[in-house]
Amino acid sequence: MIELSQKELLHEFKPIFHPESIAVVGASQDKRKVGYGWVKGLVDAGFSGNIYPVNPRGGKLLGLEIYPSLTAIPKTVDYVIVVIPREVVPGLLDDCAAKKVKAVHFFTAGFSETGETSGHKLEEELIRRAQQGGFRIIGPNCIGTYCPESKIPYGPGGTIGESGPVGLVSQSGGIGNKLVELGVARGIKYSKAISFGNGIDLDSVDFLEYMAADPKTSVIGAYLEGSRDGRRLFSAMKDAARVKPLIVWKAGRTEVGAAAAMSHTGSLTSSAATWSAALKQAGAIEVYNLEELADSLLIFQQLERWQGKGVAIVGGLADGGGGISVSASDICAELGLNIPPLSPSTRQQLSGLLGQVGSILHNPVDISQGGGKPSILQEAIRLILADSAIDLVLVQEDMGILLEYMPWEEVEAMNDILIDFRTKQDKPIVTALPPGLSETQRLQIECKLSQASIPVFPTMERAAKAIINLSRYSNKL
Amino acid sequence: MIELSQKELLHEFKPIFHPESIAVVGASQDKRKVGYGWVKGLVDAGFSGNIYPVNPRGGKLLGLEIYPSLTAIPKTVDYVIVVIPREVVPGLLDDCAAKKVKAVHFFTAGFSETGETSGHKLEEELIRRAQQGGFRIIGPNCIGTYCPESKIPYGPGGTIGESGPVGLVSQSGGIGNKLVELGVARGIKYSKAISFGNGIDLDSVDFLEYMAADPKTSVIGAYLEGSRDGRRLFSAMKDAARVKPLIVWKAGRTEVGAAAAMSHTGSLTSSAATWSAALKQAGAIEVYNLEELADSLLIFQQLERWQGKGVAIVGGLADGGGGISVSASDICAELGLNIPPLSPSTRQQLSGLLGQVGSILHNPVDISQGGGKPSILQEAIRLILADSAIDLVLVQEDMGILLEYMPWEEVEAMNDILIDFRTKQDKPIVTALPPGLSETQRLQIECKLSQASIPVFPTMERAAKAIINLSRYSNKL
Repeated sequence: MIELSQKELLHEFKPIFHPESIAVVGASQDKRKVGYGWVKGLVDAGFSGNIYPVNPRGGKLLGLEIYPSLTAIPKTVDYVIVVIPREVVPGLLDDCAAKKVKAVHFFTAGFSETGETSGHKLEEELIRRAQQGGFRIIGPNCIGTYCPESKIPYGPGGTIGESGPVGLVSQSGGIGNKLVELGVARGIKYSKAISFGNGIDLDSVDFLEYMAADPKTSVIGAYLEGSRDGRRLFSAMKDAARVKPLIVWKAGRTEVGAAAAMSHTGSLTSSAATWSAALKQAGAIEVYNLEELADSLLIFQQLERWQGKGVAIVGGLADGGGGISVSASDICAELGLNIPPLSPSTRQQLSGLLGQVGSILHNPVDISQGGGKPSILQEAIRLILADSAIDLVLVQEDMGILLEYMPWEEVEAMNDILIDFRTKQDKPIVTALPPGLSETQRLQIECKLSQASIPVFPTMERAAKAIINLSRYSNKL
Repeated sequence: MIELSQKELLHEFKPIFHPESIAVVGASQDKRKVGYGWVKGLVDAGFSGNIYPVNPRGGKLLGLEIYPSLTAIPKTVDYVIVVIPREVVPGLLDDCAAKKVKAVHFFTAGFSETGETSGHKLEEELIRRAQQGGFRIIGPNCIGTYCPESKIPYGPGGTIGESGPVGLVSQSGGIGNKLVELGVARGIKYSKAISFGNGIDLDSVDFLEYMAADPKTSVIGAYLEGSRDGRRLFSAMKDAARVKPLIVWKAGRTEVGAAAAMSHTGSLTSSAATWSAALKQAGAIEVYNLEELADSLLIFQQLERWQGKGVAIVGGLADGGGGISVSASDICAELGLNIPPLSPSTRQQLSGLLGQVGSILHNPVDISQGGGKPSILQEAIRLILADSAIDLVLVQEDMGILLEYMPWEEVEAMNDILIDFRTKQDKPIVTALPPGLSETQRLQIECKLSQASIPVFPTMERAAKAIINLSRYSNKL
């Protein structure tokens, strides 16, 4: 393999993440077809380049002319999205070559992942023709590119969120979809995401190299099922992890999972232990499910680094913080977080503020006795943040209980206090907002906190795991 | 301790869970005070017995006369809720004795949990006076009784859900609150719940004995921080677990958690290993956080028992089921679920139904290629359920993806199909509905499925853990 310089890499991938024009081959006027969805998504997102729907039947689609073929398009085409059946794919490849397109993304499935000889043969033909024609292939059997900066939504559903520092490499279109959706819901902002399915040409190695080089990406997440070339992948992960945090969820770890991966993306997988060892050696952070990947991307985006040690746990913002304080301490301590006792002076001041009665003040701190007053929360957090043993405050907010005890304005005021601390001093604040009966209000507060770079998790356990991933990475630097 | 017969036990606890009258001592006209909330909650829930607000200032509250003292109430009082400060508690105890009340619940805190000598002394006085006066004490420092059948809501917030078979014993009022809230949100239906805080008289032992005896309770959940008498607790757990599934979350497992438990409910805790061993020996099911407790209560309520072995995983109801199939298989297999391959005949029929292209058919089954048609889902589930290797079907539904590909009516139709199978045959169906951007619709479907006794979990991991807890218990029977 030829090593490309960072500049060459960025240039090579420009037509994929920042194309000046996109053709959708297999565009359809039928609103239930994906060939409609792809075009609609690009139009709705406001893709600034040219969009060329292609279908032999011609006609109009969302005000755009439908071209009968790729070669009938009068101007240049950078990126092609292919949604036609696999049987008619070979015929398209000549057009791609003739049109001098840069990259072709095959949403179309039915290749090596079927396990059939015909599928493998078709893939070989694709690669050969791409090399002859001078274009790159993404897929087949994938969703392709997502780039909010270029106004390219994720897939035919058209999901698009804000642009940010998270680069995502996903071998699965569905997992990529969910992570992009969770990004919009929870505030994870992607620079770009790519799902490459069978990855017959460009694959995890190439995209990891690109994400490592991309100046807009400062943290990389990856969902991987397997690789054709373990050595190259290892080397790419190592190079990426050297310059940016790289968080990897490797699926197909078990026998049954590996068999499914074979049917899914035609991936050969190694044993879970081999993978874990390789990830560790490469300096990547291994995560074990979708939630942990999303949680980790969120905390790396919002806090970047955290080299501290001591975590203070605060619960009972209105009432009922006792059991939560006890159980959250268990969860955090068992996962390996350090929950040091507050200094005698801090405890004395908290005791004066909250009263001794029914309070847990050593860390965890149950501020229930403050009676749900925002001013008490403010002073308690101020005292805790001033304690030299504390480097991060983990706050449990229970929306159901808050709304039982106080009006909405005061719930908002409490969260404004957290946001104020986040802005005006350096020790991070992290929150757990467990779901319940007040989902509308909870999601509203989640959105507000997230926008202020206060990471929000649905459980204390997930918050603790994310903090640990961030801490381990930061402390190795 | 005198052993009570089941009949005597039920009689003894009648005034606590089925009182004919409740007095709220410390009732308040100030809507922000809990002394208002308790009365309001009982009135709103429609408590059918007499409600007596008590406050020396007198007056009216929500149409009810406020009595200046307990003794001023003309009729008998079964249950007293105390929300006055601890300093004035001793004076009240004479009135409780004079009035011959049956049980007194102290919401009031500030006793042994403060670690102060005065707190311990006050508790000793409470116990002595209760024994002299012939009444039982719940608390202090707790929320007390919840019984939907008696229209007694949980705490001053007034949360009340449907009545059902789940009995809950919680040493923490806040944890009890959250579990009751999640019950309403997710369909966990309680026969009764109790939080007993410091448990100076009635405690975990008594309530476990009661729940074991109660014919309305068929599964018991417990949140425990510690116990004054480990031997009696062990014996009570063993007796309860002999007749009903008993699911225990023991907090205060770590040093920092144990210290917090001491400040919370004055509990002395043993080591985590000792507890785990004792729970195992008692035949209880140990869980490790609030989510797992709620998940387990839900699955035991809805499926009761499951002695099967083989689980089929179905994903991609509309599209994007590949990665989910692979990763869900990993998660389930790693947690210990058996995911057997479908029979060649089932696979052949599925292949005919879905086509070979881009499909995972061995188990997991990715039905993406069915193109989101309800009829395809119906036939696929039918084929899978007919396979003798399969005893339970675990379906992953991604609301975001479903709504990208199909109208709402078809999403509903798909879920009606699952409900239909649940009703018309015996193999259970369990679902994972991960949160995302379509929360309103997701919660609507969750509610519908839950009402049809199809358990719904937010992640595959939590679904798998709940299935395993149910399976382990059922297979020991």
